[in-house]
Amino acid sequence: MATQNITLQSCARLIRDIPDFPKKGITFKDISPLLQSGPHFRLVVDELANTIEEKSIPVDILAGPEARGFIFGAALAYRLGVGFVPIRKPGKLPYRTREVEYDLEYGTDKVEMHVDAVTEGQNVLIVDDLLATGGTTAACAKLLSNVGARVSACVFLVELDFLEGRARLIDYPTHSLLHF
Amino acid sequence: MATQNITLQSCARLIRDIPDFPKKGITFKDISPLLQSGPHFRLVVDELANTIEEKSIPVDILAGPEARGFIFGAALAYRLGVGFVPIRKPGKLPYRTREVEYDLEYGTDKVEMHVDAVTEGQNVLIVDDLLATGGTTAACAKLLSNVGARVSACVFLVELDFLEGRARLIDYPTHSLLHF
Repeated sequence: MATQNITLQSCARLIRDIPDFPKKGITFKDISPLLQSGPHFRLVVDELANTIEEKSIPVDILAGPEARGFIFGAALAYRLGVGFVPIRKPGKLPYRTREVEYDLEYGTDKVEMHVDAVTEGQNVLIVDDLLATGGTTAACAKLLSNVGARVSACVFLVELDFLEGRARLIDYPTHSLLHF
Repeated sequence: MATQNITLQSCARLIRDIPDFPKKGITFKDISPLLQSGPHFRLVVDELANTIEEKSIPVDILAGPEARGFIFGAALAYRLGVGFVPIRKPGKLPYRTREVEYDLEYGTDKVEMHVDAVTEGQNVLIVDDLLATGGTTAACAKLLSNVGARVSACVFLVELDFLEGRARLIDYPTHSLLHF
């Protein structure tokens, strides 16, 4: 594919629907084909960076939840020249952690971050591949706010508009490259 | 810290020892403080890229195991302008997968990759944060070789020399930035 054909539209076409994953009735947006294409992967990371720069969003450090948030978070952190904070499921981080519990459809889940991952007053950008219900991102934002950091924005590759996850992130500027 | 002080030595000083993690008797190398520093994170990604370029290692696409392999793999893929293939634990990937089982100290584990993640003859670079016993990396290499891809090299941020993981990767050029 020639470079001039690499657009956000062609990126969107590389996201495939997987029916009934992770469970029956859910259609999963699989970004793997996009990731596998160097020019498309580079374009979405650059577009995320452009969004941040155009909107003058202050960013001292990035944070992203495991595991796909690590992919876009790390590449974007490299592009912006800032550090990256992994937010993980319980028991994965080796040092002392803070945690936030959040509600799932049935039951609860937790996210954890190292106690010294961010400092008070730092501008933290949250990055993930997909905004669905917004539960994980809201929990990450709370985790960061609890230690005095400022969540300057939340950015996503894909947003599933019909799930209205944005409504749970009204306290933060929220930007997504692709909408379904 | 001034830019001129960002060296591999200063990166090594940002890796901290966590005793008895994930279990008693193991000392875990925690790269989080390094990741949190934008200049240090950028340096190690650039140094990995320089290693690949200087040694003329052919790279069509990168592959990395979850979850910390995603961090360095994605940033390095972005830097090199190639795609990224996530290698995951069982049940995490949404599409059809291939798997390889490998031995742990007690029991076995598996790694999975999408069936269409790489194509026959592609040069694949395996990236991870740390080379310990080499079991996971060897399983990733087998997974890729099984579908006809060529593992052109394995690169790591950190290598624990005393565990001799390199011996399990003798079929592939193997490079690490930092040795402990």
